[in-house]
Amino acid sequence: MITTKGYAAKSTTSGLAPWEFERREPGPTDVLIKILYSGICHSDIHQVKSEWGPAIYPIVPGHEIIGRIEQVGSDVKKFKVGDLAGIGCMVRSCGECDYCKNGQEQFCQKGKTVWTYNSVDADGTTTYGGYSDKIVADEAFVLHVSEKLNISKAAPLLCAGITTYSPLNRWKVGKGHKLGVLGLGGLGHMAVKFGVSFGAEVTMISHSPSKEADAKKLGAHKFCNTKDPEQVKALAGYFDFIIDTVSAPHDYNIYFNMLKVNGVHICVGIPPVPMEFMGNSLMRGNRVLTASSIGGIPETQEMLDYCAEHNIHPEVEIVPIDYVNTAYERVLSSDIKYRFVIDMASLAN
Amino acid sequence: MITTKGYAAKSTTSGLAPWEFERREPGPTDVLIKILYSGICHSDIHQVKSEWGPAIYPIVPGHEIIGRIEQVGSDVKKFKVGDLAGIGCMVRSCGECDYCKNGQEQFCQKGKTVWTYNSVDADGTTTYGGYSDKIVADEAFVLHVSEKLNISKAAPLLCAGITTYSPLNRWKVGKGHKLGVLGLGGLGHMAVKFGVSFGAEVTMISHSPSKEADAKKLGAHKFCNTKDPEQVKALAGYFDFIIDTVSAPHDYNIYFNMLKVNGVHICVGIPPVPMEFMGNSLMRGNRVLTASSIGGIPETQEMLDYCAEHNIHPEVEIVPIDYVNTAYERVLSSDIKYRFVIDMASLAN
Repeated sequence: MITTKGYAAKSTTSGLAPWEFERREPGPTDVLIKILYSGICHSDIHQVKSEWGPAIYPIVPGHEIIGRIEQVGSDVKKFKVGDLAGIGCMVRSCGECDYCKNGQEQFCQKGKTVWTYNSVDADGTTTYGGYSDKIVADEAFVLHVSEKLNISKAAPLLCAGITTYSPLNRWKVGKGHKLGVLGLGGLGHMAVKFGVSFGAEVTMISHSPSKEADAKKLGAHKFCNTKDPEQVKALAGYFDFIIDTVSAPHDYNIYFNMLKVNGVHICVGIPPVPMEFMGNSLMRGNRVLTASSIGGIPETQEMLDYCAEHNIHPEVEIVPIDYVNTAYERVLSSDIKYRFVIDMASLAN
Repeated sequence: MITTKGYAAKSTTSGLAPWEFERREPGPTDVLIKILYSGICHSDIHQVKSEWGPAIYPIVPGHEIIGRIEQVGSDVKKFKVGDLAGIGCMVRSCGECDYCKNGQEQFCQKGKTVWTYNSVDADGTTTYGGYSDKIVADEAFVLHVSEKLNISKAAPLLCAGITTYSPLNRWKVGKGHKLGVLGLGGLGHMAVKFGVSFGAEVTMISHSPSKEADAKKLGAHKFCNTKDPEQVKALAGYFDFIIDTVSAPHDYNIYFNMLKVNGVHICVGIPPVPMEFMGNSLMRGNRVLTASSIGGIPETQEMLDYCAEHNIHPEVEIVPIDYVNTAYERVLSSDIKYRFVIDMASLAN
């Protein structure tokens, strides 16, 4: 077994603290990755606090992982020692169903998707995430990371990146389209970057006028302050697409009314309470509502390659691992532009 | 002016009774149609009772109209006297905005869509619908009706037909697709017919086992009794599309779970109260919810031609005009398979 250093929470209220645990020896199709950077995702906080169903404690979060291959199993084909590599939200699935074969492993028909942490692997062991110095995973779920990427900033691509890239890609958002982005956090700021890069006219929609300068710095072309009824009215029937990164309950009718005929509202954040709106605000204009969940492995690779090619990186604040509990507090109070990344070298200290 | 005989309601509670009124003389681009058949749509009942905003009394309902051209204005190009013709839900729009030019007149950007009845026309007069012996309308909103169609049955195509044809056509539902149909009324039975004709495998989804035989008679291939949890479970992730014709509040989560990844739930009926569901049941599978409102004039013509070519007709019960109040009661108690059509010759009696 491989002794691994990490940070874990032992209960809903313990916070995260150093913890040593064991990972399996790499099997024939496994790689061992030395973790260099690990992003902090809001969903880490939910899971650490058992807010998404009961957590398996101790829980080692982290599903935005960048590192270097340190060892490869005998049958590994995609990687060699020294390669940069990434791991996102998933580390296994059935591999046989239509969705797995079709690169939609997050929707495995057999329900055998194994999440990177807080999940039970095929061998019955618990998975532990990226807030640690090493990880072992089947190469099928490991991504190539280009040397062109700035790896200290790239980790959030593995979740925030693919979550926004996937629906914009699937709905073919691009040149000639007007895209609204709701919410300017980890997901929202990537949605702005991808929208701009794909050629769309991007409008940040926010109730905080203070976000205007930030959004424009990221490339947004326009800004709508939703606290000003005139600005809201001016956008009636305006957008081809809205990407909605807000997971707090909000009034969808307002945003549906900003869509053109056949316009599409894409939720990548959803509230923990029922979504509610008048059917009429969809029917007027044959409008479309959809939600989107991360992305499959081939599309995640495509996204990473696209970002390397187009020099797209998340905006991050790099912190040492012993800052993680403070970082969580700052995520909860939206005091971060836009994503924390843990420099895992700090684990050695 | 043209003296017209019809049936009108004078108040929310009056019911419908004979009423004589005047229509304008046909202008240069108008046609005068002698009405032969007029369908009864559930929305007639809502409007007669002022349930969709205040009605303009007296109200003459009817937006599923089939007749013959009796007179044409000097500039009319599409029609000659004696032609069969139809009128659906609209009789005018601005004609200049992107949506009007694009055959989506129901979504006129200037809000100048004039409905066939209970609406104010461009000249300030009230529009009166098809429960009458004649109608005058601009040829741009009049449809050609093929002599191949059985005109005693065709009237409901102008609303129930286009309402179901349009979204199935827009989403390219056809061969290789599994289509679920929710609700077996005026809309639902047309959705079954179109779905089968387009080559999809059609499943009627209903809580009334008694509907199975009816649905299969219409061409449905399968049936799901939603009162049987086993049958519901068996359809998890089954459909590419569901067309939902139910306007009573219902639990959308159940049906979203029946959709494949990227599956689409199309509402052509929407409840008068907020729609409500867990965002997760959309996000699991990147599912899509949309609603669809009738269809534009070019697509309505396409649908009528398709029905003529493929011998598709609504199932109707033909009644005289003095039966209309009883027919309304029977619609409200779902005691009709599947649409009433008024034989307007009965007005002469």
